Amino acid sequence: MNKLLIVGTVAFDAIETPFGKTDKILGGAATYIGLSASFFNLQSAIVSVVGDDFPQEYLDLLTSRNIDISGLEVVKGGKTFFWSGRYHNDLNSRDTLDTQLNVLADFQPKVPQDYKNSDIVMLGNLHPLVQSSVLDQMEKQPKLVVLDTMNFWMDCALPELLEVIKRVDVITINDEEARQLSGEYSLVKAAAKIHTMGPKYVVIKKGEHGALLFHNKDVFFAPALPLEEVFDPTGAGDTFAGGFAGYITQSENISFENMKNAIIHGSNLASFCVEKFGTEKMVDLEKSDVSARLKQFKSLTQFDIEL
Amino acid sequence: MNKLLIVGTVAFDAIETPFGKTDKILGGAATYIGLSASFFNLQSAIVSVVGDDFPQEYLDLLTSRNIDISGLEVVKGGKTFFWSGRYHNDLNSRDTLDTQLNVLADFQPKVPQDYKNSDIVMLGNLHPLVQSSVLDQMEKQPKLVVLDTMNFWMDCALPELLEVIKRVDVITINDEEARQLSGEYSLVKAAAKIHTMGPKYVVIKKGEHGALLFHNKDVFFAPALPLEEVFDPTGAGDTFAGGFAGYITQSENISFENMKNAIIHGSNLASFCVEKFGTEKMVDLEKSDVSARLKQFKSLTQFDIEL
Repeated sequence: MNKLLIVGTVAFDAIETPFGKTDKILGGAATYIGLSASFFNLQSAIVSVVGDDFPQEYLDLLTSRNIDISGLEVVKGGKTFFWSGRYHNDLNSRDTLDTQLNVLADFQPKVPQDYKNSDIVMLGNLHPLVQSSVLDQMEKQPKLVVLDTMNFWMDCALPELLEVIKRVDVITINDEEARQLSGEYSLVKAAAKIHTMGPKYVVIKKGEHGALLFHNKDVFFAPALPLEEVFDPTGAGDTFAGGFAGYITQSENISFENMKNAIIHGSNLASFCVEKFGTEKMVDLEKSDVSARLKQFKSLTQFDIEL
Repeated sequence: MNKLLIVGTVAFDAIETPFGKTDKILGGAATYIGLSASFFNLQSAIVSVVGDDFPQEYLDLLTSRNIDISGLEVVKGGKTFFWSGRYHNDLNSRDTLDTQLNVLADFQPKVPQDYKNSDIVMLGNLHPLVQSSVLDQMEKQPKLVVLDTMNFWMDCALPELLEVIKRVDVITINDEEARQLSGEYSLVKAAAKIHTMGPKYVVIKKGEHGALLFHNKDVFFAPALPLEEVFDPTGAGDTFAGGFAGYITQSENISFENMKNAIIHGSNLASFCVEKFGTEKMVDLEKSDVSARLKQFKSLTQFDIEL
């Protein structure tokens, strides 16, 4: 089985949507990526940090999905990263109510020895220096390095972000972030500019409007599944990235044609994530549900025009 | 050859976008629908009205595309419908600067005798009573009636609009209009509610975010082609509808599977429309360009996951 190394936050989230609010629940980019990737046939490990306030049941949940957590540092006396946010009525935008970095502030990632030869590396949202440090520790060049980031690092750590972006094959960001990073409004132009910063593949996530994959002059598009209700968008982008990286890891094929499939798998998994609060839906999800919905994606997008 | 009957405005538009502005140029729903449908193998006629200020060269243009204009009334001493609008910087929204109904105010549509047995009827945006009157004049039940409308009629003539909607098979409206008509925010719920108003097929146009086709529990999605620049969105929705109706007319197949193809053809043609001001691009477009871009649509959307 191929190995997927996942870096990103493991966190507490408190979420408000028009449909309700949660107390502190399990969250974090690496959590969503790990859960999503666990639907594929692979070995995975998470590199991250939590405090000793982090419940054993959450650690057990990760382990039960065959995720190696030997690289998940538990800081004695430390408090876990906490994020709290409130979504607007259309669920397309949100306000951050609180961010407590806690143990993340001094985090020095340590890649487990067994994963220094990982096939695929998924650098989830975290400080670009942490993302770089993980790449520095690899003993073999991964077949593919995927990076996810957000506007926060463009505002606060742009030089470091640009350094790590140079070193990755695929970048996944949302449409507004692509515009901010490139200075271009047109997403086609934005992707072209981001190509020149390093990544050969640029994935632009548009939330309910789907996702675009750019590679030189080639483009692929996957819609989001039209849903009756979107309950909570938290983690959808990470779940998408986890599905993308998970499928690539399982299939050992980094061609553009196969990345199209990976984008569909990512969109498929993300369509479940938004149906309940936080990780709730992903935790209960069966592989049979995932396959059934993949059929819906085919019928949603495939047509038969002779050319 | 099958017959397509087109109803809608034939007009003068004056357009401002961030890229420039036009004087009075050729516009109107029926104009865009007719030009777009002319890329298919069919006979078509436009039912509409203009004043005698309408230039002969515009009439000649329609005729040169094999569009029958015997149902396009020219009112002596009358002035042609005029619309003027300014697009915002993102081109997703616009302000109407001026609307002069002129000859449209008293328009009584007359369907040419030869087209009273049309196979497909495309009711482009116009007063719902005009749309109804055209249906009343048909001597044979068309295989498919497609209706396009806009929020203006929902505000000003809702009872008349609901009457004509009952009589059509397909409705095409944009996302905001679908929400207004149904009172539902979720487009899935909106489409379900609009089904109960009459149309078996509901097409929701999302501009740069593509288009959805709903039929009971089935959904199909076509993206808009990602473009480096969108120059002027005027007429894109009508061009889409014209491509949809034109392909259905040519293919004589009103199954859901074939409507998927029609949605793709509509999206493909609309992708050209937005590249220049008004009808400029559609007038110069070659069939070979249309076919070439259809290949781009395939590679943009088609994937190969075994299920």
